Amino acid sequence: MTRIDPLAIGLSCPLPIEDGDVIQMAHGGGGRKTAQLMDRIFLPAFRNAALAQLGDGALLAVGAERLAFTTDTFVVQPPFFPGGDIGSLAVHGTVNDLAMCGSEPLGLSVGLVLEEGFPIASLTRIVDSIARAAEHVGVPVVTGDTKVVDRGKGDGIYVNTSGIGRVRDGVTVGPERARPGDAILVSGPVGDHGIAVMAARSGIGLETPLESDSAPVLFLVRALLDAVPGTKTMRDPTRGGLATALCEIAASSRVGIRVDESAIPVRDEVRAACEILGFDPLYVACEGRFLAIVPGDSSDAALAALRSLPEGGGARCIGEVTNGDPGRVLLRTRIGSHRRLERLSGEQLPRIC
Amino acid sequence: MTRIDPLAIGLSCPLPIEDGDVIQMAHGGGGRKTAQLMDRIFLPAFRNAALAQLGDGALLAVGAERLAFTTDTFVVQPPFFPGGDIGSLAVHGTVNDLAMCGSEPLGLSVGLVLEEGFPIASLTRIVDSIARAAEHVGVPVVTGDTKVVDRGKGDGIYVNTSGIGRVRDGVTVGPERARPGDAILVSGPVGDHGIAVMAARSGIGLETPLESDSAPVLFLVRALLDAVPGTKTMRDPTRGGLATALCEIAASSRVGIRVDESAIPVRDEVRAACEILGFDPLYVACEGRFLAIVPGDSSDAALAALRSLPEGGGARCIGEVTNGDPGRVLLRTRIGSHRRLERLSGEQLPRIC
Repeated sequence: MTRIDPLAIGLSCPLPIEDGDVIQMAHGGGGRKTAQLMDRIFLPAFRNAALAQLGDGALLAVGAERLAFTTDTFVVQPPFFPGGDIGSLAVHGTVNDLAMCGSEPLGLSVGLVLEEGFPIASLTRIVDSIARAAEHVGVPVVTGDTKVVDRGKGDGIYVNTSGIGRVRDGVTVGPERARPGDAILVSGPVGDHGIAVMAARSGIGLETPLESDSAPVLFLVRALLDAVPGTKTMRDPTRGGLATALCEIAASSRVGIRVDESAIPVRDEVRAACEILGFDPLYVACEGRFLAIVPGDSSDAALAALRSLPEGGGARCIGEVTNGDPGRVLLRTRIGSHRRLERLSGEQLPRIC
Repeated sequence: MTRIDPLAIGLSCPLPIEDGDVIQMAHGGGGRKTAQLMDRIFLPAFRNAALAQLGDGALLAVGAERLAFTTDTFVVQPPFFPGGDIGSLAVHGTVNDLAMCGSEPLGLSVGLVLEEGFPIASLTRIVDSIARAAEHVGVPVVTGDTKVVDRGKGDGIYVNTSGIGRVRDGVTVGPERARPGDAILVSGPVGDHGIAVMAARSGIGLETPLESDSAPVLFLVRALLDAVPGTKTMRDPTRGGLATALCEIAASSRVGIRVDESAIPVRDEVRAACEILGFDPLYVACEGRFLAIVPGDSSDAALAALRSLPEGGGARCIGEVTNGDPGRVLLRTRIGSHRRLERLSGEQLPRIC
């Protein structure tokens, strides 16, 4: 799900889209250009309550049930990378979006676009990876579709995964629910996925091999919601990274956010690669981490719940929601100064998901 | 939803897929090669009850509700064609799949893959078309995703639409429910969509301009199910056309099927184009028609219900379910002989949906 809040766009005065304009790579980057498409084209066309929520998925009421519904297309290049592949990435991405809605996944769909000439052995490997990832989280792939396009009209394989989940009883989370005094937690170190894919694509050798963090966050979310059912907001910082996710939450909730650079976990090898390449790790995508915003007095309980599982061992409290300027995210740097974080502008790392 | 029955594959002894093999255009054609992928790769990987049903969508029980869930990716070339475009086609395709499950659509997702350089004006036109088509059937687009791929790695635009529906109370339809004595109805003339797209792509001028039949069948399905809630099977004959759909139903229900060539509605201009081009109209895709199988004694009521709406004016009873060889579909030709219909072999018309 592309997660853009129109309020944030309004605040940042985007350039209008001209009729003569064409799609640029940055329109898919999850930052300001993606937000422009959302604000100028998609939202006016599709305006409805469910879409306007702009969470990781839509919420639908069906009889007495609350359902979450989400979709994502994966175009990552290369399709196989250290720590994962396009198949497991797609399952994790969609399961994580369902988890971010506070829902238990019920079923997934898989839609493939295959390029003529794609090796059947690679397809088999990816389908097996989809099946294993789905089995790991206990959610069946219940329906699918396969299309083939001519050679030169695709790039091997694109994977769409959509998913349905059932929202847990007693849980209501959303990007608009953060309030001053809430604590902001992250479930582990950020930026691993984007750097791992970029290194695999460019052939850059990292001194310490780095793997993508692609993984389901479902088990962590269950532990968190068992411990703190009053959790306000959850979000997985994919395209646009941690900084963009925070900006979106600050805009949706119309609150200020302050985070502490020294508290944000970043692996040394990710930091080193970012320094060499000129990236900011706060804008690099994760595919197995999430942000949770919980009432301030539940911060310790939430952190303990996350740390009770191996994949949550690196969880940290990184900041707090404030009554500062609505939509403004401030970073307290290591040297004690303050820097405003904006959402990603342009395309930092194309086709990492 | 790719609809292939493994039984039919078993009956027709497919060649094994070799590791050295690569994807061919025919793997996306909806016929035997698509069935091979399903049988050899997808079904073994994803085996579960919902997928094994192999209808137009999966059925999921959530609390007291029965949900239908379906996905389809559209790669039609050209994206604008007489009678529609990739946007309206995608909405109709997914809404029709939900209708074929006997469900009322609740919400749609839209996942776009855009090629760098695609005109924003074309995107806007397609998004508006999606919105109009969705509004026409009263189903909201509730969630979405946009990815951009490099120039030369796509073909303008690919659209995935997934959908959720709620199965109507008292209705249970499925490809396995046809029984000897049932009547087979088609809601209108077949083959318009495939020929219209092919003509638009090739620049072939037809003497009488032909438009795609792309349209929602939801209103017709409502009329039919109101009149005949005991309807057994519904299917929209998209890729592979009417003949392949009949073969799949015959295989799933393990029954014989006999249809009458002279009863099958085909427009003169479609028949003429097919004769020139060497196509069989029974294998050409429709995107706004459906097959319904109803108890024999409800045939008149079903036909009257379909004909009560303008888009059902061309509805016909085309044949019956028999206790002949399970899986065998026989066509009584205009000259009174019998010909066995097999599912589509190879790729008749690539990228028509």
